[in-house]
Amino acid sequence: MSFDKLQELIKAKKNPTVAGLDPKPEYVPPHILRASLDKYGETLEGAADAILQFNKGLMDALCDVVPAVKPQSAYYERLGWQGMRALEETIRYAREKGLFVMADVKRGDIGSTAQAYSDAWLGKTRVGSADLPVFDADCLTINGYMGSDTILPFLETCRVEDKCLFTLVKTSNPGSGELQDMVAGDRVVYQVMGDLVQRLGKDDIGKYGYSRCGAVVGATYPSDLRALRKRLEHTFFLVPGYGAQGGTAEDVRFAFDKYGRGAIINASRSIMCAWQKTGHDGQDYQDAARAAAEAMRDDIKQFVTIL
Amino acid sequence: MSFDKLQELIKAKKNPTVAGLDPKPEYVPPHILRASLDKYGETLEGAADAILQFNKGLMDALCDVVPAVKPQSAYYERLGWQGMRALEETIRYAREKGLFVMADVKRGDIGSTAQAYSDAWLGKTRVGSADLPVFDADCLTINGYMGSDTILPFLETCRVEDKCLFTLVKTSNPGSGELQDMVAGDRVVYQVMGDLVQRLGKDDIGKYGYSRCGAVVGATYPSDLRALRKRLEHTFFLVPGYGAQGGTAEDVRFAFDKYGRGAIINASRSIMCAWQKTGHDGQDYQDAARAAAEAMRDDIKQFVTIL
Repeated sequence: MSFDKLQELIKAKKNPTVAGLDPKPEYVPPHILRASLDKYGETLEGAADAILQFNKGLMDALCDVVPAVKPQSAYYERLGWQGMRALEETIRYAREKGLFVMADVKRGDIGSTAQAYSDAWLGKTRVGSADLPVFDADCLTINGYMGSDTILPFLETCRVEDKCLFTLVKTSNPGSGELQDMVAGDRVVYQVMGDLVQRLGKDDIGKYGYSRCGAVVGATYPSDLRALRKRLEHTFFLVPGYGAQGGTAEDVRFAFDKYGRGAIINASRSIMCAWQKTGHDGQDYQDAARAAAEAMRDDIKQFVTIL
Repeated sequence: MSFDKLQELIKAKKNPTVAGLDPKPEYVPPHILRASLDKYGETLEGAADAILQFNKGLMDALCDVVPAVKPQSAYYERLGWQGMRALEETIRYAREKGLFVMADVKRGDIGSTAQAYSDAWLGKTRVGSADLPVFDADCLTINGYMGSDTILPFLETCRVEDKCLFTLVKTSNPGSGELQDMVAGDRVVYQVMGDLVQRLGKDDIGKYGYSRCGAVVGATYPSDLRALRKRLEHTFFLVPGYGAQGGTAEDVRFAFDKYGRGAIINASRSIMCAWQKTGHDGQDYQDAARAAAEAMRDDIKQFVTIL
C-alpha cells in the first residue's frame, strides 16, 4: 500500500525528507525566467513555463537524493489554468523520475464535493465512457474541520487507487493553537482530530504498521509532536516547519518510531532558493538545491536511523 | 465595500439567493454534452467545453433572477487545467453579466501560501513588472482551522481589492458537529471560529452593518443558525443546505437580520439539474433552471422581506 511504497523509497535513499515545490517566479533563476518571459511575455503563461522548467531542473538534481516531492497547489493556482497545467506536467515528470508525489492542497468539503476533489487529485473522472486520471498524485493533504463524512470520500478513493492522505492535525504556524489547542473535555481539538484520523485508518494497515490516513503535524511544537507520535501509532506523519519556520533536526526526531519510520520531513524554500545564497547568478541552482537537500538529510540523520 | 455591492444586488433582484455552479458532465443536457464530445472526444477538454457552454446558458437564463453565482472549484479541478480554464471563463462571463461571483474553494494554509491563494482568487500575481489578475472572483470561501494568521493574508487582499470572504463556521453536513460542536470552556468550537471571524472584521464595517469577513453557516442546523445571527451581528452569512440537504425556507429565515439583510442562501443541483425533472430531453434546461430559481426565491420571500 501507498505508505509502504513511500517508506521503501525513504529507506532506499536513506532520506526521510520531501522537497516542497512551491515556486514563485521570483524564485526561478534569472536565466530561466528570462528565457520564458522572452518567449511568452510577462504573462501567466510565461511564468508557468518558467516554473515548470525550474521544477524539472530541480527534480533532475534531486531525484536520487529525495524520495518525494510536495508541490503546493497555491503557487500554481496563482498562475491560473496555465499554472495548473504546469502542475499537471510537474506531477507527471516527478512520477517518471520515480518520485513519490504529495499534492499539498488541503482540500475539504461535503461528501459529493469531497468526491469531486478525490477524482481530481487521486482518482479518475468519468467523461462519457472513459475514466480519465487528472492530477493523479500519490497522496493528498486534506482539512478535516467539516467532519469525518468529508474525509471518507477521499479515503474510499485511496482504497480503490492504492493511495493515501494526510489530514491536518497540528499545524506548524504561529496561530495554530487558537483553535487546535482548545481544551474540549479531556482532550484538545488537535488530539480529537488525530484520534479521528487514527480511527478512520485502523482497518487498513500496511506492512510497516501505518494506515492510509496520515496526519500533518508541525515540527515547531516538538512536545506536541512527541506526544502525538505515541498517541497515534498507526498514523504516518508529514512534518512541515523544519528550517525557516524554526523546527530543528533535534525537534523532528520525535516524529519517527523506534525503527526510524513513520514520518517524512518537508523543506521547500531552503532547497528551491538555495541558489540565492551562493552569491552566484543562479546558473548553479541545481548544485545548490542538491547540496541543500543533502545537508538537510545529513542533519536529520544525526538523530534518526532508518531501519 | 464588497458585501454592500452584494446586498444591493440582492435588493435590486429581490432575491437573497445564489446559484451554485457545480457542474458534472452528467448534469449537462445531452445535446450540449454530445456537441462538445463530438468536437473534442471523451476527454477532459471535451467535458470542460461542455460545462462551460452549460454554465453560460445557465447564467443567460438566471442573470436577471439571481444576484450571484457560486462556482465550486472541485468540479472544475476534476477536469484538470482544462476545467480550470473553464472556471476562469465562467467567472469572466458571470462578471460581464453583472453577477457577483463567490468562488467556493475553502482554501486555508500558512501565511505565505495563504497569500498565494489570495493572489490566485482575489488579487493579482506579479510576473516581471506586470500585476495580473487571475481567477478574480468577488469573494472567496476559506477554512480557518489553522488559525487567524492563515486568514489575515486573505483579509488584507480583500482590503486592497475591495473584496470579501466567507470563513467556515458551522457547516451543513451531517458530520459537522464532530469537531465544530465540541464544548471548549464556555463556548463550542464553531462559536470560537465565529467570534474570531467577527473580531477580524470589526474595524471595517460597510454601510449595511457587515464586515468583509463573512461566515458559512448551514441551514440544516436552524437553531444554531438563529443563535449565530444574534451572536455575530456584523457577519454576513453564506447559507448552504437549503433544498436537497434538508434546510427549508422556514429554517433559513433565521439567517437574516430584521431588515432582511445579512445573508444569502445557496442552491446548486436543484437549479442546475432542474431540467432532469421536467421529463423532457434537456433542450428546456434554461427555462427549467429559471423556474427553479424563481420558485426558490418565492419560497424564501414568504418568510423574508428585504428592506
